[in-house]
Amino acid sequence: MSVYEPVILAEQKQLKDFVLDPLTKKISLGRWEREDSNKGMVDTLRQALSQRLGVPVSVPLSLMNAVQELWVANQETITVTLASQALDEKGRVTSYQLIDIEPGDGTHFNVGLAIDIGTTTVVVYLVDMVKGDILAQAADYNGQIKLGEDILSRIMVAREKAGLLELQALIVHTINKLIHDLCTQASLKAGDITAVCIGANTTMVHLFLGLNPSTICREPYKPVVNNPGLIWATDIGLEVNPLAPVYCLPSIGSYIGGDVLAGVLVSQMHKQEEISLLADIGTNGEFILGNKEWLVACAGAAGPALEGGVTECGMRAEQGAIDHVYIDMVGSEPKVRYTTIGNLPARGICGSGLVDCIAELFLSGLINRGAQFTDGRERFLLVDAEESGTGKDIFISQRDINNLMRTKGAVNAALEVLLESVGCPWEEIKNFYAAGAFGQYLPLESAITIGLYPDLPREKMQRLGNSSGEGARQVLLSNQKRREIEEIAKKITYFEMNANNLFMEKYGGSRFLPHTNLDLFPSVKEKLAARQRAMNQGQESDRV
Amino acid sequence: MSVYEPVILAEQKQLKDFVLDPLTKKISLGRWEREDSNKGMVDTLRQALSQRLGVPVSVPLSLMNAVQELWVANQETITVTLASQALDEKGRVTSYQLIDIEPGDGTHFNVGLAIDIGTTTVVVYLVDMVKGDILAQAADYNGQIKLGEDILSRIMVAREKAGLLELQALIVHTINKLIHDLCTQASLKAGDITAVCIGANTTMVHLFLGLNPSTICREPYKPVVNNPGLIWATDIGLEVNPLAPVYCLPSIGSYIGGDVLAGVLVSQMHKQEEISLLADIGTNGEFILGNKEWLVACAGAAGPALEGGVTECGMRAEQGAIDHVYIDMVGSEPKVRYTTIGNLPARGICGSGLVDCIAELFLSGLINRGAQFTDGRERFLLVDAEESGTGKDIFISQRDINNLMRTKGAVNAALEVLLESVGCPWEEIKNFYAAGAFGQYLPLESAITIGLYPDLPREKMQRLGNSSGEGARQVLLSNQKRREIEEIAKKITYFEMNANNLFMEKYGGSRFLPHTNLDLFPSVKEKLAARQRAMNQGQESDRV
Repeated sequence: MSVYEPVILAEQKQLKDFVLDPLTKKISLGRWEREDSNKGMVDTLRQALSQRLGVPVSVPLSLMNAVQELWVANQETITVTLASQALDEKGRVTSYQLIDIEPGDGTHFNVGLAIDIGTTTVVVYLVDMVKGDILAQAADYNGQIKLGEDILSRIMVAREKAGLLELQALIVHTINKLIHDLCTQASLKAGDITAVCIGANTTMVHLFLGLNPSTICREPYKPVVNNPGLIWATDIGLEVNPLAPVYCLPSIGSYIGGDVLAGVLVSQMHKQEEISLLADIGTNGEFILGNKEWLVACAGAAGPALEGGVTECGMRAEQGAIDHVYIDMVGSEPKVRYTTIGNLPARGICGSGLVDCIAELFLSGLINRGAQFTDGRERFLLVDAEESGTGKDIFISQRDINNLMRTKGAVNAALEVLLESVGCPWEEIKNFYAAGAFGQYLPLESAITIGLYPDLPREKMQRLGNSSGEGARQVLLSNQKRREIEEIAKKITYFEMNANNLFMEKYGGSRFLPHTNLDLFPSVKEKLAARQRAMNQGQESDRV
Repeated sequence: MSVYEPVILAEQKQLKDFVLDPLTKKISLGRWEREDSNKGMVDTLRQALSQRLGVPVSVPLSLMNAVQELWVANQETITVTLASQALDEKGRVTSYQLIDIEPGDGTHFNVGLAIDIGTTTVVVYLVDMVKGDILAQAADYNGQIKLGEDILSRIMVAREKAGLLELQALIVHTINKLIHDLCTQASLKAGDITAVCIGANTTMVHLFLGLNPSTICREPYKPVVNNPGLIWATDIGLEVNPLAPVYCLPSIGSYIGGDVLAGVLVSQMHKQEEISLLADIGTNGEFILGNKEWLVACAGAAGPALEGGVTECGMRAEQGAIDHVYIDMVGSEPKVRYTTIGNLPARGICGSGLVDCIAELFLSGLINRGAQFTDGRERFLLVDAEESGTGKDIFISQRDINNLMRTKGAVNAALEVLLESVGCPWEEIKNFYAAGAFGQYLPLESAITIGLYPDLPREKMQRLGNSSGEGARQVLLSNQKRREIEEIAKKITYFEMNANNLFMEKYGGSRFLPHTNLDLFPSVKEKLAARQRAMNQGQESDRV
């Protein structure tokens, strides 16, 4: 594993106010009524189950011979696995489909998968659907990377049918490999897995299902589907029970995917009085703002600065990446300290390292509020060639800073347009949720310092961890949550940023550190003042 | 085609009091709402359809890309084909599934198949589901014959998985060949066929669906399933629209199949005040007795006499088979006239010829009420070698007569036990319906003469034609009929004959022509008296 240990459920580990009513459930039956001499075995079973559950139960053709085999084997007790097929408006099941039948009482054991399909990383959680716990987890790169690093290049590949099929095969292969790992870890068979829930962005859902994503980024700028409903594992080639239902968290359009809606579900911001802001910042920035009365969303390109791809010494958050940077001014000489992933010799800078570095450069006065090196230099050395793991200098350049400033500017502009559109001043935001891959790792203080995150009391700021995976787990475990995320999707008003002139205006005006209006960032203002005092003291002590 | 021209709908050609509400329907849509800028195309379509129809509509994964293609092609009008998935207790659709989508307005054209899968013969009707008409029909032998002539031998083959799969492949191949013929006849593509409805006995349904029929004839003497519900064509390999729903008429246990229940549906005996008897006599005899208040059914082996298999000169109802026999007594010399299928030189006797022959022998006084040749001979010559198509004599032997008498005895005994079980005297039966393959062809008068059919006013006796196929057509065309046949299935009480001592008693006492109690057959009594008078006159005129 060459990726970060996946962050799971950060502050959300407990399932609060949660009634387990999973996507599939097992129930055991004693001997079915055997008196009636001419009724079919499947009909008898179907009737017994329908009476027990109070709703219709269908039995697929592929399981009918198995029903006969168990009947003839004269089992005292059998266990059936049922998929929660249709739900009413409250999330109560209105029809079940049989997906498995086994001898004996197997109700104590029922496992499913919650999967976060990221553009870069795929994380699979093996979930105990009887108790709700995570039994095991595994992560790997999304195998599609070999056909395209970013979403847009994969959409291009998927325009051709063959490319689409290959991309689908690659992600299914990645997941199947992880399933195999998990089954080995947990000593179970892949066929024991009876349900799958997926959190992913809209494009990843399309590629996973073999749906053509091309209209996401061209006319009519719509995805094929927001809510695919229940799909069966066999139709995708997932190596679990072939009849296992697969549910993809719904999206609202092309840019706000199920991964982002999962953040709303996990944060429960849609049930609070106070206004919250949820931000998922990566190559795209996705934002959801609102409370229990209203929710608005917008999305826009943030640029690849955080991915490490455009930074001269940038890299992904892999072994040897600089992830934290501290700059101490010894007099007017900056002293750099840093940490790397895996504590290995530094090989480059990842997104969190970059944010830290720019924040420290700013606080140290090495760059000004316009994000320009104050001494006019072109680069700042972090690690010299002798010390580095590559034999080369590792530095941050003015160009790197400019790139990140574009990302920050786009984020600020999008947020300000969104806030103005609903007439909500910055000060009204009372809670902030950091979602998405970068939300898990970006250093909070530095992100505030450079103005990427709002400056709120820290106890009101929460990392959601892998909220895409956690949302998938919650929906896997609860039909009520499945209905809830569908209701969230209906409730959100999408605000179209691309067509907005105000955006460019705001974008032009938001390229200062941390913000044009420093008063919106009181803690940064305070930090700057503190550093200034320290430096003044330092200069004084130098003089002494 | 070497089989009888299929009889279609004999006296039931019109659909009376019939509301067309077929298994699949097409509806056209103008441009879908295009304003909403971020909703998925499938979601938009699903919502438009659900609003139009007032019930949920699901869209399978395999059609989602097609929705996108039509959207992008910017069609003014599109047509969707919807399968009536779930029904309420009145047969109203409570959920639809999309099974096809096409450009333009295709609502004028929607075809389905009604299929009668007989143990021997398969008949496929191409049905216009917009108007209700039969557009074309085709028939052939059931390809399974090569693995076993009768049901029992095929059940033996199907005990092994490989045998079951081969039997399924054979019947599917037979049907696919007929579909190909029909499509050629009607100039359409197999993929245009959007729905399939099957009438067949319980074993044939099992073999068609790949279900193991072995428990039908051994412990626990139950079929795997009575009502399989909707199956999708692709799961069976039928070469029609792969998403076409396939509905098999339900059975009630091992011996009363959907083919027999179709007879009830077609006759509407379950809605009449008067008591009716429906009989489907072949290798097994199946009987349904009752009215709008109650229905009872029984079934029992009738023996292979009618199939021609055990008759010394017997054959199936193919070209050259003697199907009608008349015996004129010229003095005491019998003169034989006969007809053959296709007017070809006689090659053997089929079931209807056999019944005719025995009735004529009886009325001519050549066999007595105990069905023995009165002159002690062993055989009766119908066609001599010179005249026949085989170069051999064609005759009927005492053994052949005895075989048919066993069939007749079993039928009489079963009926009498059934009547006694419900306390219904013979005289209460006011309507008689002849169903099944032999019901279409057996000569009515002769069947009454030998006591195989009851002796009722002839206008109260009705051949149902291919009621299995006709029932399938009605259910294909009407969801209300689908619910109605399911209600019929629930309403019927099955009467177990095998465990009944009374049966053997009745069987022993029912081997007279036409019946132990001649008074139950007044028209036969009259015919015997008339022939006697004629013969007496003949003898007198001889003497003159």
